[in-house]
Amino acid sequence: MPRVPAPSPEHRFSFGLWTVGNPGRDPFGGPTRPVRSPADIVRLLGGTGAWGVNFHDNDLVPIDATAAEEKRILADFRRALRETGLVVPMATTNLAFDPAFRDGAFTNPDSRIRAYALQKSMRAIDLGVSVGAKIYVFWGGREGSDTDAGKDLLGALKRYRDALNFLCGYVRDRKYDLKFALEAKPNEPRADIYLPTTGAMLAFIQTLDHPEMVGLNPEVAHEQMAGLNVTHALAQAWDAGKLFHVDLNDQAPGRYDQDFRFGAHNLKSAFFIVKFLEEVGYEGPRHFDAHAYRTSDEGDVKAFARGCMRTYLILKEKAEAFRKDREIQGLLAEIGAEFRSMRPFQGGYAPAKAKALRRHAFDRAALGRRGFPYERLDQLVVELLAGVR
Amino acid sequence: MPRVPAPSPEHRFSFGLWTVGNPGRDPFGGPTRPVRSPADIVRLLGGTGAWGVNFHDNDLVPIDATAAEEKRILADFRRALRETGLVVPMATTNLAFDPAFRDGAFTNPDSRIRAYALQKSMRAIDLGVSVGAKIYVFWGGREGSDTDAGKDLLGALKRYRDALNFLCGYVRDRKYDLKFALEAKPNEPRADIYLPTTGAMLAFIQTLDHPEMVGLNPEVAHEQMAGLNVTHALAQAWDAGKLFHVDLNDQAPGRYDQDFRFGAHNLKSAFFIVKFLEEVGYEGPRHFDAHAYRTSDEGDVKAFARGCMRTYLILKEKAEAFRKDREIQGLLAEIGAEFRSMRPFQGGYAPAKAKALRRHAFDRAALGRRGFPYERLDQLVVELLAGVR
Amino acid sequence: MPRVPAPSPEHRFSFGLWTVGNPGRDPFGGPTRPVRSPADIVRLLGGTGAWGVNFHDNDLVPIDATAAEEKRILADFRRALRETGLVVPMATTNLAFDPAFRDGAFTNPDSRIRAYALQKSMRAIDLGVSVGAKIYVFWGGREGSDTDAGKDLLGALKRYRDALNFLCGYVRDRKYDLKFALEAKPNEPRADIYLPTTGAMLAFIQTLDHPEMVGLNPEVAHEQMAGLNVTHALAQAWDAGKLFHVDLNDQAPGRYDQDFRFGAHNLKSAFFIVKFLEEVGYEGPRHFDAHAYRTSDEGDVKAFARGCMRTYLILKEKAEAFRKDREIQGLLAEIGAEFRSMRPFQGGYAPAKAKALRRHAFDRAALGRRGFPYERLDQLVVELLAGVR
Amino acid sequence: MPRVPAPSPEHRFSFGLWTVGNPGRDPFGGPTRPVRSPADIVRLLGGTGAWGVNFHDNDLVPIDATAAEEKRILADFRRALRETGLVVPMATTNLAFDPAFRDGAFTNPDSRIRAYALQKSMRAIDLGVSVGAKIYVFWGGREGSDTDAGKDLLGALKRYRDALNFLCGYVRDRKYDLKFALEAKPNEPRADIYLPTTGAMLAFIQTLDHPEMVGLNPEVAHEQMAGLNVTHALAQAWDAGKLFHVDLNDQAPGRYDQDFRFGAHNLKSAFFIVKFLEEVGYEGPRHFDAHAYRTSDEGDVKAFARGCMRTYLILKEKAEAFRKDREIQGLLAEIGAEFRSMRPFQGGYAPAKAKALRRHAFDRAALGRRGFPYERLDQLVVELLAGVR
Repeated sequence: MPRVPAPSPEHRFSFGLWTVGNPGRDPFGGPTRPVRSPADIVRLLGGTGAWGVNFHDNDLVPIDATAAEEKRILADFRRALRETGLVVPMATTNLAFDPAFRDGAFTNPDSRIRAYALQKSMRAIDLGVSVGAKIYVFWGGREGSDTDAGKDLLGALKRYRDALNFLCGYVRDRKYDLKFALEAKPNEPRADIYLPTTGAMLAFIQTLDHPEMVGLNPEVAHEQMAGLNVTHALAQAWDAGKLFHVDLNDQAPGRYDQDFRFGAHNLKSAFFIVKFLEEVGYEGPRHFDAHAYRTSDEGDVKAFARGCMRTYLILKEKAEAFRKDREIQGLLAEIGAEFRSMRPFQGGYAPAKAKALRRHAFDRAALGRRGFPYERLDQLVVELLAGVR
Repeated sequence: MPRVPAPSPEHRFSFGLWTVGNPGRDPFGGPTRPVRSPADIVRLLGGTGAWGVNFHDNDLVPIDATAAEEKRILADFRRALRETGLVVPMATTNLAFDPAFRDGAFTNPDSRIRAYALQKSMRAIDLGVSVGAKIYVFWGGREGSDTDAGKDLLGALKRYRDALNFLCGYVRDRKYDLKFALEAKPNEPRADIYLPTTGAMLAFIQTLDHPEMVGLNPEVAHEQMAGLNVTHALAQAWDAGKLFHVDLNDQAPGRYDQDFRFGAHNLKSAFFIVKFLEEVGYEGPRHFDAHAYRTSDEGDVKAFARGCMRTYLILKEKAEAFRKDREIQGLLAEIGAEFRSMRPFQGGYAPAKAKALRRHAFDRAALGRRGFPYERLDQLVVELLAGVR
Repeated sequence: MPRVPAPSPEHRFSFGLWTVGNPGRDPFGGPTRPVRSPADIVRLLGGTGAWGVNFHDNDLVPIDATAAEEKRILADFRRALRETGLVVPMATTNLAFDPAFRDGAFTNPDSRIRAYALQKSMRAIDLGVSVGAKIYVFWGGREGSDTDAGKDLLGALKRYRDALNFLCGYVRDRKYDLKFALEAKPNEPRADIYLPTTGAMLAFIQTLDHPEMVGLNPEVAHEQMAGLNVTHALAQAWDAGKLFHVDLNDQAPGRYDQDFRFGAHNLKSAFFIVKFLEEVGYEGPRHFDAHAYRTSDEGDVKAFARGCMRTYLILKEKAEAFRKDREIQGLLAEIGAEFRSMRPFQGGYAPAKAKALRRHAFDRAALGRRGFPYERLDQLVVELLAGVR
Repeated sequence: MPRVPAPSPEHRFSFGLWTVGNPGRDPFGGPTRPVRSPADIVRLLGGTGAWGVNFHDNDLVPIDATAAEEKRILADFRRALRETGLVVPMATTNLAFDPAFRDGAFTNPDSRIRAYALQKSMRAIDLGVSVGAKIYVFWGGREGSDTDAGKDLLGALKRYRDALNFLCGYVRDRKYDLKFALEAKPNEPRADIYLPTTGAMLAFIQTLDHPEMVGLNPEVAHEQMAGLNVTHALAQAWDAGKLFHVDLNDQAPGRYDQDFRFGAHNLKSAFFIVKFLEEVGYEGPRHFDAHAYRTSDEGDVKAFARGCMRTYLILKEKAEAFRKDREIQGLLAEIGAEFRSMRPFQGGYAPAKAKALRRHAFDRAALGRRGFPYERLDQLVVELLAGVR
C-alpha cells in the first residue's frame, strides 16, 4: 500500500478563513455550524499541516467593527499566527456581500459606490499587507449583469480597468511588495459575470497600465462551471507568466457553485491539475477555496481540510509514478517522435522555407492512417490512479 | 499491487457491433478507421473475454442488402459466434440513420413513415430473435423536435405508445421470449428528444398495454449529458423492477454525446454505478455502448475494449473492498443508526399514530446540531479508489 | 399596437409569499430589501390583478412563533385576504431551511428527523387547509446526496414513499379536499436531488398507495437547469392526467437556480409553455415561482410581479394569433397530412394487419426525400413573437 | 404592423458555402439533401439579398481534385460571383475533416502533419486571396485533447503560435491585404479544444509576433455552448480593437453544436448582439454560420437563409426603437446618473486623491438602499421585442 506523505508547510497549502470557517448557509437553508473566530480557525488549521491562511477583509474584521474591535481581533489573529506558524500569503476584499454592491463594485453605475469600493479596497490592501500578504486577489462577483438591458458593456470594462489601474497606482505609491491576481467566474451570483474565464481575464490584464503587477488566480470550480478544462486554463496562464495563485476545489459542470473538497468530484481532472503544477515547477500557494458539505459538523470540517491536502499529495505521488512508468513513457515517446525530414520546415518564417514547403509532396493518405494510442495511454492513467499498476 | 481478474463470459460483458466497429466519423470529420465486417468484429471481441455482441439491424445487414447478401452475412456472423462462443443478448433497430426518419420513426407526422418504421422493427425483431436476442432495445433518437412550432406533443406521445403497443402485440403473437428495454436521451441529434430521461421513460411504460414486457436500458452518457446522476436513475429503475439492460460508457456533462470508454471521464461516478449493480445483484448484460477516440487505430480500439472491462472489474474489486472496510462500515453504521423511540411512528398510516406523532415534542435545535460524516466517508472512498488504503 | 389585457382573477395568477417577499439574499450576499409581513405581501399583490397567494408554513408562521404570535399573524393574513379578495390555492411545507433537515427530511437517515418532518407536514397541511388550499406541494430540496458514498438509494426511495403514503393517509383520514403535487429539481442545494425530473416524479407516483391523490408541480426553471424542454415535461404530465399545478419562471440552462421573471430568459420557450397550457385547457393555477433581481428595490419588485403576468398574457395573445394565422395553419396542415393508404396499418395490433404490413412495399428512397418546412414555420413563429406579422 | 426592410448588400450579410450547402448529415444520420455545387450555392444566395459568400478551401475545391477540376470549379464559381454580384469577404482552411488531422493540425504531435497543415493553409490562403477575401479565419477544431494523458499543453501552445507566426510571415511576404480572425470553441469534436473561448483567443493573440494582423471571429453558438454571454465576449473583442468578423447563429447552452438559424433559440440574446454591433458601428461582415434543420428540404433551406437575415433586420429595428423609447431612455438615464461629489475621486491615481478618498465618509447603509430598476427595464425590452410597445 503506497504511503501518502503528511502535509507540511513545504507543500504550501493554504485555506481561506471563509473555507474551514464556512457555517453551511446556502440559498435554501440557514447555517448548520457555529461561526468561528478568525483566531480559532487559524488554530484549527495549525494542526493540519497547512502553511497559510487567507482572508477577505470582512472575514477578519466585520464591516461594522469599531476601531477597538478591529484592534482586538487583529491582536488575536496575529497571536494565533505566531502560535501556529501559519503565514498569510494572500488577502482579498469582499466586494460582493454588502447591499451597496448589489450592482457591482468597480463597475457599478453609481460613482459613489465605485469610489466606496476603491476606498474599501485600499483599506483592505493595507490590512492584508500588514499581516504579510504578497498576493492580492480580486474576484468581482457582482461585476456583471442579470439582464443586459441596462448595461453599458464597454463602459463597464473601462470602469473595471480604471479601478485596477488606480489600485496598482496605490500599491506602487505605497511601495508594497504585492501583486494582484484576478479571478474569473462565469456566473453566480450574477446571471453573467464580466470577464468570465481565465482566458478573458488574461486578455484584460494586457489592457492595464501595469500589466506586470497583475496576474491570475484561476479557480478549478469556476472554469468547470462553464464546462471548461481547468488544466488548459492553467497552461495558458503559465505560458503567459501569469499563474500567480490558484484556487483548488472541485465542481460538477453546469451547476451552482459547489466548492467541493479538492478531487471530490473528478479525481482524474484533479490529477492533471496536480501533474501540471508539479511538472512546471509552480511555487505559489496551493489554496483550497472549498468548504465542507452543509451536512458536516466541526469534526467533519477537519476531515474535509485534511482530505484536500491528502488528495493533492496522493495525486502528486501519482504524477511522479506517471513520470517513472516505462510503459507510459514509451507511449509518450512514440506519440512525440520527431521526423527528421521535417526539420527544414520548422522554426520561423522564411521565404525559401515557405517555397520548399509549398512544393513538398506529402502522402496525405499515409498521414491519415497514423493512429495515436490515447486509449491505451488513458487506460494506463486510470489504472495508475486506481492504484492497480 | 492488487490483481485485476481477467474478463470472462461470467461477467456478462457485451459490446455492440457499432462500438468496436465504429470507424471514427464525427460531425466535423470523415472516418479514420476501416469498416469491419460483423464477423470480424465478433472475432475481435472473441479474444477479449467479452460474453456478448449486440447489433442494430443495419449494423449486421445493410439497409439495401439483397436477400442473397443477407443470407451470406448471417451465415458468416453465426459462424463467428460459434467459433468464439459469443452470444447475442440484445438487438435493436436503427430508426435514426435513414433520411426517411429525419422527423422521427414511431412519432413521425407522416403515417407512411410510421408504418415503415413498424415494418422495419418487426423484421429487425425477427432477425434479433433468430440469433438469440432476449432483450430488444428501442432508442428513439429522431423522436423529438428541433422547434416545437410544428409539433403536436400529445399526439406524439400517443403515436409512440401505439407503436410500442403494436410491437408488444407482435412479440406476443409470435410467442417470442423477448422483452423490450427503452433507452432515453435528452438531446442530439434532435434539439429535444421526447421522454428525455430514464425517469420519463419509466413513467411512459406505465401507460402501455403490456407494461410487464417493457423495461429500461439506462445509458450512463445519456443521463450525464443532462447533468443527472446515473446511479440514482439506475436505483429508480431497479426499484420499479425495470432494469432490463444497461449501457455503460462515460461522458462529461453538458456536451455532445461522447460515448467514452467506461470510467474514462469520472472514475468515482463509475464506481458508484458498479457498486450499485453488484450490490443489488443485477444479472443482466453489462453492455459497453462506447467507442474509441477518433484518434485511435485498430490496436488502440482493442485497448479501448479491454479498458472498458478492466475498469469495470477494478471497480468491482473496489466495491468489495468498500464492503469490507471497517472504518467505512463503521461510519455507515453511525449514519444509519436507529432510534428506538421513533418506532411507534414508523410504518403505515394509522389515526392513533398520527395523533401521537402530532403531539410528540421534538427537540428541533438538538436535531439541527447532528452532523453527518460525509466528508470523512467520501475521502475514504477517494483513497480507496486511489488504492492508498 | 396590440393591446395586452390587464391581469385579473379569472387568469388564475398566483404568487408565493416567498416570491414577491424575497429579500434578495443569495450565497454571496445579504438581503437588499426589507422583510415584509405576509399581510403586507397580500396587499401588495392585491393591487396587481393576481388571484392567489401561496406559502410555505414558515413563510406565514415563523418556525419558532408562539401560539399567540401565530394567532395574530393568521388573523392579519385572513384580514388581508378578505380585503383583497385573494385566495390561497396552494400551500407547502418548508423542509429545507432548518439545520435539522441538512441531510433530508422524509429520506433523512435519522428516524427522528423523518418523524419530525412528518409532524411538521401534518401541521402545515392543517394550516394550508385552514385557509383554503386545495393543492399541497412537496419539494424535497434536501432529499438527495452530495456524495453517494453514504447513501442507500433504494432505502431512500422507500422512505420517500412511506412518508407520502403516510401523509396521503392523513389527508384521507381528515377528509381534506386536498391533492398533492410533487415538484422535481435536479440539483441545488444538494449535488443531486432524488427524483430529479418531472418524468422521474411521475414514475414515482405510480408506486404510491394512492396515486390518484398525487400529481405534479413542474417548474420551468427546474427542468431548464438540466437543459430539458419544460413543455415536453408538461405534455407528459398532462397526458398522464397529473398536471395539478405549475411553477412558472425562467432560467438559463446549466446554472444555479435563477427563478427569473417568467419569459425573462427565453421568450420563445415561454411562448410554447403558454400555448400548451391554453390549448389543452389547463385550469389550475398559473403560479409564478420567481423573484425580482437582487438589485431591485420595492418599486421594481412590483414591476417584476406585473411583468410575469403581462408576459403570460402577451404570449396568450400570441398563441391565439398562431391559431388564426393562415400561413402557419397551412404549414401545419401540410405537415400533418394523412395518407389514406396507411389506414389499414393503423390502430391496435392484429395478426393479419402485421402480416399485411410486413409485406407492404415501401418506397424508402421516396420517403427519404420528404422534407418538412420547420424552418419556415419556426421563422413565422419568431416573427409572430416579434410582432411583425 | 412594423415593416421589415428587405435584406440588401449594404447590410453585409454573408453565408458560408457549407451553411446553405449543408446536406444534413449528423452523427446519427446520413445526408438528407443533395450536395450542391459551389456555383449553385452562390446563385441560391444571389436571390436572397446576401452580400457575401465564404468558404473553406475544400468546400470550393475538393481535397483530391485534379488541377483541371480545380480550374473548372474556380471558373464556374467566379462566373456565379459575377452574375450575382456576391463578394468573398472571408475564407478559411479545413483542418478538421481529413483523417490526417485526427489529432490536430498546427498542434499535432507529428511534425509531418504540422508541416502539411501549413502547406494546406498557404495554398488555401492563396485561393482565398485570389477571389478577394480580406479576412482569413482559423478555427482549430482538432487542436485539443480527448484525454490530457498524452498532451504537452505548453508545447501545444508553442506549436499553435509557431504556425500562426509562420502564416503571418507568409501573408506579409506575399503582401496580401489580409487579416486573420481566430475562432474559439470549447469542445466538439474534441473533448476539450485549446483556447476555448473568445477571451482565451484574445489573450493568445497578444503572444504572437504580429498581433496587429490577428483578431477574432467570435461565434455565437461557440460561446453559448459553454453557457457564456456572447455579447459580453463581443464587447471585450471590440474594446481590444479585435472584432474582425462575427459568426451569427444560435444554440442552446450545454449541448452539441447546433448552428441554428440566427435568433431561433433565444431572441433576446440575439437582440443584445444586434444592438451591440449596430451601436458600436461594427462594419465587418455579418456572417451566418448556421445551417437548416436536417428535416428541411431545399425550399426550407431558402427559408432558413432568409430567416437569418430577416431576424437580424427585425432586431436592428428593435434596437433603433430601444434608442428612441422615452421610458427606456429615462430609466437608463436614472441608472447612469452622475454624482458630482465623486468627481474628485475619478480619473487616474494620484497620492492626494487616494488620501482624500481614504478619508471620505461614505454612508454605506444609504448606498445599500439604492435599488436599480432592472426588472422594469427588462420587461420593457421584452415588450419591445414582442411588438406590444
